[in-house]
Amino acid sequence: MGLKLYDLVGKDGLRYSPFGWRVRMSLLHKGLEAEWEPVNFTDKDKIAFSGQKRVPVLVDGESVVSDSWAIVNYLDEAYPDSPSLLGGAAAIPMMRAWNHYVDTIVHPAMAKIIVGDVFDNVDPIDMDYFRETREQIFGKTMEQCKEDGERHLPGLVPALLPARRQLEEYAFIGGDSPNFGDFCLFGPLQWARCSSPRKLLPEDHAVEQWRQRMLDLFDGHARQAPCCEAA
Amino acid sequence: MGLKLYDLVGKDGLRYSPFGWRVRMSLLHKGLEAEWEPVNFTDKDKIAFSGQKRVPVLVDGESVVSDSWAIVNYLDEAYPDSPSLLGGAAAIPMMRAWNHYVDTIVHPAMAKIIVGDVFDNVDPIDMDYFRETREQIFGKTMEQCKEDGERHLPGLVPALLPARRQLEEYAFIGGDSPNFGDFCLFGPLQWARCSSPRKLLPEDHAVEQWRQRMLDLFDGHARQAPCCEAA
Repeated sequence: MGLKLYDLVGKDGLRYSPFGWRVRMSLLHKGLEAEWEPVNFTDKDKIAFSGQKRVPVLVDGESVVSDSWAIVNYLDEAYPDSPSLLGGAAAIPMMRAWNHYVDTIVHPAMAKIIVGDVFDNVDPIDMDYFRETREQIFGKTMEQCKEDGERHLPGLVPALLPARRQLEEYAFIGGDSPNFGDFCLFGPLQWARCSSPRKLLPEDHAVEQWRQRMLDLFDGHARQAPCCEAA
Repeated sequence: MGLKLYDLVGKDGLRYSPFGWRVRMSLLHKGLEAEWEPVNFTDKDKIAFSGQKRVPVLVDGESVVSDSWAIVNYLDEAYPDSPSLLGGAAAIPMMRAWNHYVDTIVHPAMAKIIVGDVFDNVDPIDMDYFRETREQIFGKTMEQCKEDGERHLPGLVPALLPARRQLEEYAFIGGDSPNFGDFCLFGPLQWARCSSPRKLLPEDHAVEQWRQRMLDLFDGHARQAPCCEAA
């Protein structure tokens, strides 16, 4: 029986969820394929079986796992013979610490830049929901968010400094080859690529050069996904 | 032959270097004692033998190691039978990534708060040097830095969010027990404790509760060090 990944769907079938992307890249790293079950923001009923309200949700036979961190831990435990995502017991707490850095420093910086662009690319049936919830979070209209995106662009530079330094020393966050540390950070960058036409980083930025390498992984899987980034 | 640690000295023998503290805690973790060789900012000649101009420098027999990251790597390699600092090959890149987070997010946030207080506590013979170099970095007088410290205090909260989330899940950054991830983050907090009377975090903040645990480690070594923190 195949795996199923319940993951957010946007306009015209776009898939931009940063949490979805970390899991999708993690599945590919493990050599696993998962059928996509598209989920709308306003269709929480579809994932009610998981006992919570957020995508992504992975279904693997009898196992139902939600939360991207729980999913990658599950994958390393359930598939110990394929390449490790987390690097084993000694590395797991440090991987989790990096995950928190991405969630609490990179995500908010990225959201301020692209949330207005994401709004342009949500599924039409989710637009009212997205506007209402995000306008409350950001304290301004989606139109104002879109206009302010450019002003928040410089905030990405200090937020990405830890990643930049790491990628000036190593080819990947995980060292010589990618691991979940890479897929986790790639999430917000692919969130942007699949929802926004903005150019975020100069070509000589270590994070941008690494992003190009990430787009090439797994036969260019992430590069080929429908996106909004200008060619 | 014993180990020697060349580490910064401040007024009245205060030792506040955040890079020194990460190494000192790392040495204790390895069960090693190192004799302190005090170094002034303006006494670069004393460490010229290391081929560079920054403390800390560790001397272990024939080995001379500078840079705190190089030192902890050296300690794990030279003393493999004592508790690991970095957690082995799979964990090292993620530990380095955390190190970069501390250096590029936490350090600058802390420096803005305490640099004026540090100035009050540098060795008198270093005061001119410290004023000149730091006033250039911060673009204002030491007196203005001291006055502005309070205004920068709120900036510590978002900078510490990754650590806070981690410490809401684990007792230590390294998981159930401390490792270099802890000693690295402890550096800037001990830098503050040993140079500034400011109260930085509320008592119920997960990072503050962890800091108290860190101060208790190794028979209260860091708690007993001469400090400027109000009792």
